[in-house]
Amino acid sequence: MPDPYPFLKGHGTENDFVLLPDRDGTVHGDLSPERVRALCDRRAGIGADGVIRVVRAEPGLGAEWFMDYRNADGSVSEMCGNGVRVLALHLLREGLVEPGAPVPIATRGGLKVVTAAGPVGGDLTVDMGAPQVLDTSTVAVGEREWKALHVDMGNPHAVAFVDSLDDAGPLIDAPQHDEATYPDGVNVEFVRRVGPRHVSMRVHERGSGETRSCGTGACAVLVATALADDAPRDVDYRVDLPGGTLSLRWTTDDRVLMTGPAVIVARGTTDL
Amino acid sequence: MPDPYPFLKGHGTENDFVLLPDRDGTVHGDLSPERVRALCDRRAGIGADGVIRVVRAEPGLGAEWFMDYRNADGSVSEMCGNGVRVLALHLLREGLVEPGAPVPIATRGGLKVVTAAGPVGGDLTVDMGAPQVLDTSTVAVGEREWKALHVDMGNPHAVAFVDSLDDAGPLIDAPQHDEATYPDGVNVEFVRRVGPRHVSMRVHERGSGETRSCGTGACAVLVATALADDAPRDVDYRVDLPGGTLSLRWTTDDRVLMTGPAVIVARGTTDL
Repeated sequence: MPDPYPFLKGHGTENDFVLLPDRDGTVHGDLSPERVRALCDRRAGIGADGVIRVVRAEPGLGAEWFMDYRNADGSVSEMCGNGVRVLALHLLREGLVEPGAPVPIATRGGLKVVTAAGPVGGDLTVDMGAPQVLDTSTVAVGEREWKALHVDMGNPHAVAFVDSLDDAGPLIDAPQHDEATYPDGVNVEFVRRVGPRHVSMRVHERGSGETRSCGTGACAVLVATALADDAPRDVDYRVDLPGGTLSLRWTTDDRVLMTGPAVIVARGTTDL
Repeated sequence: MPDPYPFLKGHGTENDFVLLPDRDGTVHGDLSPERVRALCDRRAGIGADGVIRVVRAEPGLGAEWFMDYRNADGSVSEMCGNGVRVLALHLLREGLVEPGAPVPIATRGGLKVVTAAGPVGGDLTVDMGAPQVLDTSTVAVGEREWKALHVDMGNPHAVAFVDSLDDAGPLIDAPQHDEATYPDGVNVEFVRRVGPRHVSMRVHERGSGETRSCGTGACAVLVATALADDAPRDVDYRVDLPGGTLSLRWTTDDRVLMTGPAVIVARGTTDL
């Protein structure tokens, strides 16, 4: 059993994370898939969708801090749009970054900049980068089929508009998709129009099943909806997810800005 | 938002709990169902099957400490055989009870005594009291039916022997049961013989669905199996559950002793 080491638990729209402060990389230099799985175990561990090791960035990455993100199964991942807000909140709260200024964070998916619009503890905005809009294909759940737009946000998405979010079933079973379009699998979003510039969605994430929130999925939904609306750039869309609400904007310089909550609910030590 | 207050997280055979130290009852005198639900929320909270408030017992209960147990839905509950071991471990670790001696704990289900056989951190034994053996009825899942023995451990159980634990389905749907025998619902155990004095089981708990462990369910399984075996008293049975292994003994003075692990995985503060 290791010596107790510090952790925090937090979430963004109920996408939840264990944060492991490791400023100089000496605590978890050997962060193993086994330890990630033990921390994320929802019965025998603390429980989370993933682990964020908080470590100083290597020089030349344009940021003081690096987001070392691991999925609950222990695998390494590029980035997580909900997680990077929680990490920024932690850095702001602890005084580890300049107060009131945008927070640059290095990730395996490139440099991300998180901005707090108001006081610490309020919503945070992440620049999620440029979307790639590709072709249309078909997704299916059971007997039902939908046309779906292929949007790439660094990971692949299929966005389908539906009349009712119940259409995809009580819990979304792994949707069928075009293997040629998505050779590495796909995240599938089901979107319902609620009002002008307001949609609600459910998402099935590859490797995870249906989740309560997916940041890149919300970005893909914004892009598909704005295209369908022939909307001007730089307007805000509201996207309701099972785990909460995000605000999204597609800018004139082709970036997707995602704004949403970040919460840290607990801090302490563990010897998992 | 309340001031941060201390918590611990632990589990026994993957039945997991948030412990709230509240020695003199001043921290959580007003512990609300809303706060219990927030703490037990597995995405937006810390996540657990229940909350154990650790508070001094009223005089005359025969114990210094009281187990104020709440289910994840916020409702008050009598007792939890896995939880009382975790609570005893906490009291032993913190030096709040006499080291090396049996730990008496007052609960809504009466006084329980927890004994550590060896060093702190090893298995703990709980005296679960006397079983009541009642009649046989029928339980069913989907098209399949089994005869089940009615054993009461302070709460009602129906114990059915099966050829394979898969017989009850991939995830056990709410079993049908005799409403006259169980007017308040029932916990249903499916038991498979593994070897002499060794069984494995799955359990469907009323109000919770299938769980990874149920202490009173394991006691009911011991009683049903020992009766079927015409076994002498005071012998140990091994019961394998999805969340771990318990050892059980039915004594000559008609008590069920349950021995199993208790683990505390994290401690810290929260403002949930």
